[in-house]
Order: sequence, then structure tokens, then C-alpha cells
Amino acid sequence: MHISENERLEDLGLGGLRLIQDTTQFCFGVDAVLAAAFTRVKAGGSIIDFGCGNGIIPILLSHKTRAANIVGLEIQPVAADLARRNVELNGLLDRVSIRDGDLRTIREADFGMQFDAAVSNPPYMEPSRGEKNESEAMRIARHEIMCTVDDVVAAATRCVKYGSSLFMIHRPERIADIICSMRAHNMEPKNLRMVYPAPKKRATMVLIEGKIGARPSCIVHPPLYIQDDEGRYTDEIEEIYERNAAK
Amino acid sequence: MHISENERLEDLGLGGLRLIQDTTQFCFGVDAVLAAAFTRVKAGGSIIDFGCGNGIIPILLSHKTRAANIVGLEIQPVAADLARRNVELNGLLDRVSIRDGDLRTIREADFGMQFDAAVSNPPYMEPSRGEKNESEAMRIARHEIMCTVDDVVAAATRCVKYGSSLFMIHRPERIADIICSMRAHNMEPKNLRMVYPAPKKRATMVLIEGKIGARPSCIVHPPLYIQDDEGRYTDEIEEIYERNAAK
Repeated sequence: MHISENERLEDLGLGGLRLIQDTTQFCFGVDAVLAAAFTRVKAGGSIIDFGCGNGIIPILLSHKTRAANIVGLEIQPVAADLARRNVELNGLLDRVSIRDGDLRTIREADFGMQFDAAVSNPPYMEPSRGEKNESEAMRIARHEIMCTVDDVVAAATRCVKYGSSLFMIHRPERIADIICSMRAHNMEPKNLRMVYPAPKKRATMVLIEGKIGARPSCIVHPPLYIQDDEGRYTDEIEEIYERNAAK
Repeated sequence: MHISENERLEDLGLGGLRLIQDTTQFCFGVDAVLAAAFTRVKAGGSIIDFGCGNGIIPILLSHKTRAANIVGLEIQPVAADLARRNVELNGLLDRVSIRDGDLRTIREADFGMQFDAAVSNPPYMEPSRGEKNESEAMRIARHEIMCTVDDVVAAATRCVKYGSSLFMIHRPERIADIICSMRAHNMEPKNLRMVYPAPKKRATMVLIEGKIGARPSCIVHPPLYIQDDEGRYTDEIEEIYERNAAK
């Protein structure tokens, strides 16, 4: 496996998985891990990750779910290449494939099938805010330059089976954009979970499941705290990272 | 003060306020108290409560805020009459007035002014669900028969100053209806707070502030828990009910 000068190989510390990250590109964070943990797909099913970056979510899904066909779609060739090497590195070529492509134009016919679920950890920020002094790759990963939340929702409605779900992690400040975009595309928010860095803090992330063609009615699940009052990771986070055995 | 046979006089246990409730009508609950506590209006300002029922929210607002002009709008004459007696009972005739009317048609001209804020604890349920075996008064208070969430939002945009807010308490399952309705009426969800009966439970209420003409960006505040793990009221609830002195 070739690892370039600006790349580093990391042990994910979860399911024996490893990941090459490019330090000049967007590196994965807790959001990718939470998105993967929030996602449900049936055993033997298929799932697509819109904007997979270095492949972190497809790789985590190979461990967290029993999906048979996991596709990562990525518009940036450098990231897609890295994702492919990460899939190979983890011996997942039989279940995970990485596809170059633009989620704004991709549709069912491009895959010859409809997926059982979709997931996305899309760029959080609108193009105008704080994107100076970033590399082109970072700008595209973090800002809505190549895709908006509406593009992600629309892509899901084109590529996922009717009655199936899109699982997304995003910023709480965008919640109205997300919910209204889902409604506009006949996708109903069904499950919502706010993520808080610690008790008594404002939410910093939101996990949301939208189901295509479902009837209105959303469940707001208990808060997910990253750390407790004393700055320790909560039991739930330790469980998601599968660190319980180490205790 | 006349109190009918099916009515009872209650001490609110908060600011020395008292309330006559009609046991055959909708009686106030923790939601009205939370809605009042969530509401902000400037000192000397004006505020309208859409669907004030027995007047609980206007009466609480007289204590929780320094608003000078608090109007309760109510479509059911029996409830409006009760609300008027409750205002008088608490000696609030100088700050609180109750108005018979339909929020679906009410507008600025009916008051000769625009309000600085609006609040509402509207019917939570859609007409089709579980409304059998209820009195007409209860059905109207609990189901969207006389008004929908969209009617409440629309009324606020007609009666409240541009740049001002509607504070609402509702059910989490309706969150998409609320947010999309706000967006459709140029009202932006700016503050959102989920209410949980206890830790690790699903949310049972949602507090939301929509601001007319504001730019998109919502803050998701820390969860509000009614009870703690041991079934005791949380400090925050005790504070809202002003019971701290009793500890």
C-alpha cells in the first residue's frame, strides 16, 4: 500500500480498522463516527454515502452494519483515490466500492439499482462564511460549494428506494434548511437526535433521518452527550467507539 | 367573584397567582408554564397569546415579564369569560385583557397596533386522532379544529412587528410542520429547546422561537428536563415554578 509524504496511517481503534488520512485534506472527526452509528440498513442491503471523502463512513458501516453493498460517492478525485486505498487496506473490496461522481447529477440509472439507504456528512457551511485561507480541497469538504443540503436530499430521493431513509449529520443552526428541504422533496423527518458536547451546552451537531414518502411525525430522541460534566467521554460515546472492553 | 359548580379555585403556587379552572374544560399543565417561562418580551412592551384558554399564559406573563400590555385571544366564549374572571381575580385588569376572536381572521387593524411578541400553546393534535369521547370544548382545545399550527404562525405574522418573535410550545412529532410553516411565512426558527420528562427519555415537548424576517440560523439549547433520574423535579423546573425558597 502506497502512503504519500503528506499522508498518515491511523488505527481507528474500532473493529481493527485503519485509515490513511491526507493531512492537507479534510480529516474525519467524531461526526463521521456518529453518522455511521446512527445509520440503519438491513442485513444484506445496499447503502450509498454521498460525499464519502477518504472513505471513513463506508468503512465504519462495513463494521457497524451487515450491509452487503456499500458505495461511497466522491467528487474530488484525490479523496476518492484515498478512499479506494482505504477500502483495500481494510480488505473490504468485496463489500465497499468508491465511485467518482457528482451527487447533483447522479441518479438510479448510474448504478442500475436503487439503494436501501443513504447516509451523508455533507459540507456544513454556506459558501460565504469563513472559507478564506483554506485549500481548495478543504473548502469543498467544508463549504456548500459543490453541493448544498438540498442537493444531498434530492440525490437521496433519486437513488434510494421509496420508503427508505437518508441518515444525515449536520449542524443544528441548519435544522430549518434540512427539514424544509426534506419536506420539499417528499422526505419526512422521522428521527431526530441532538448532539451536545457536554450537559448544559448548546447542541453542536444534529442527527436526522428522513424517510421518503413517509407520513409526518418525528421522534426526538434523548440527547447524545459527547462528554459528561467532568469532561470524561460518556458511556454512550465509549460504546460507539467500542472502548468498553478497555475499561 | 363568582365560581360555578364545575369550577375550582387553585393557588398557582407561583407569584401569589390564583386561577379558576373549569373541570369540564381544558385545564392548564406544565406546558403553559414552560411556554410562559420561554417567552421574552421587552419591558413596557405588548404581547398577544393566541388561544389563551382560561388565561393561564397571560396571567403568568404578567408575573414573568414586565410587559405593559398583555392580550389573550380566545375563540371559545366560555373560556374567554373564565379568563376574564381570572384576570380580575389576580388584580391584573391594568395589564391584561382578554379578547374574543378567531386567530384565523384577526389582524393588526383589529387591535390598532402591532405587538412586540406573540406566544401560543395551541392544540397539539391533528383532528383525526383520538378526539372521540371528548366534550366540544376539550376537542377544540386539544385538536386542530379551530386552528392549525399554520394558522397560529400566520396570525403572528399579521399581528406582530417585523423582526419580532412568536414563542410556541408544541409536540416534537410536529416539529417539521412547525418549522416548515414558519419558513413559509417568512418566520425563521431562531431558538429551539427540547423538553424531556427525564434523562434518557424521548422529548415530549418542544419550545420554539420564530422571528419574522430573520436570517436563517437556529440555536439548539441544552435539553430541559422535567425530572431527574430519581424522579425529583430538576433545579430548573423548581426555578421556573419559583419553589427554590421552599427548599
